Amino acid sequence: MAKELEKNTITKKKLIYSISQENEINPQDVRHVIQAFLDKMVEHLSEGHRLEFRDFGVFEIVERKQKIGRNPKRAAEPIIIPARKAVKYTPGKKIRQLIALGDEEA
Amino acid sequence: MAKELEKNTITKKKLIYSISQENEINPQDVRHVIQAFLDKMVEHLSEGHRLEFRDFGVFEIVERKQKIGRNPKRAAEPIIIPARKAVKYTPGKKIRQLIALGDEEA
Repeated sequence: MAKELEKNTITKKKLIYSISQENEINPQDVRHVIQAFLDKMVEHLSEGHRLEFRDFGVFEIVERKQKIGRNPKRAAEPIIIPARKAVKYTPGKKIRQLIALGDEEA
Repeated sequence: MAKELEKNTITKKKLIYSISQENEINPQDVRHVIQAFLDKMVEHLSEGHRLEFRDFGVFEIVERKQKIGRNPKRAAEPIIIPARKAVKYTPGKKIRQLIALGDEEA
């Protein structure tokens, strides 16, 4: 239980605050740059481009095929899940290694 | 074919350049803030925290269960894929809507 409580949700606001403090940069300036960065990511992805950030990973648009789903309570009625575009994120090597390390320590 | 060529890979360097130009901020300062932002994301994720950015989405660590895989050429020899931690990214509403719009236009 104690371990569960250590897992927090980190928001943009919190990251902006700590970047501002640690680097002695005005929080408004940090917020402005980070918001522009996230907005540009959304813009480029929605245009179909791929984003590649060394260490962090890759974001790309993938096509998910149409699928037939079934509600177990109404097995006779298939549910058609239409083909759609989705954002796929593939973590970079550095982040995968750090997560695996945390796993071994646990 | 022409459509395929329009899909580019956008790097961190390119985003830093355009944010610097559009906002008249020194590129070194933009790079510094963005690198700190990505480094903090990696750090928090590797500690097991969840990252939530409004509009952009959520990053979290999930456990993938052990799986039994099979090489079709060596069907008798199951391949055990061990349980592992993975980073899961769930896009925010804004980005999902924009991608769906792009889909309808296509």
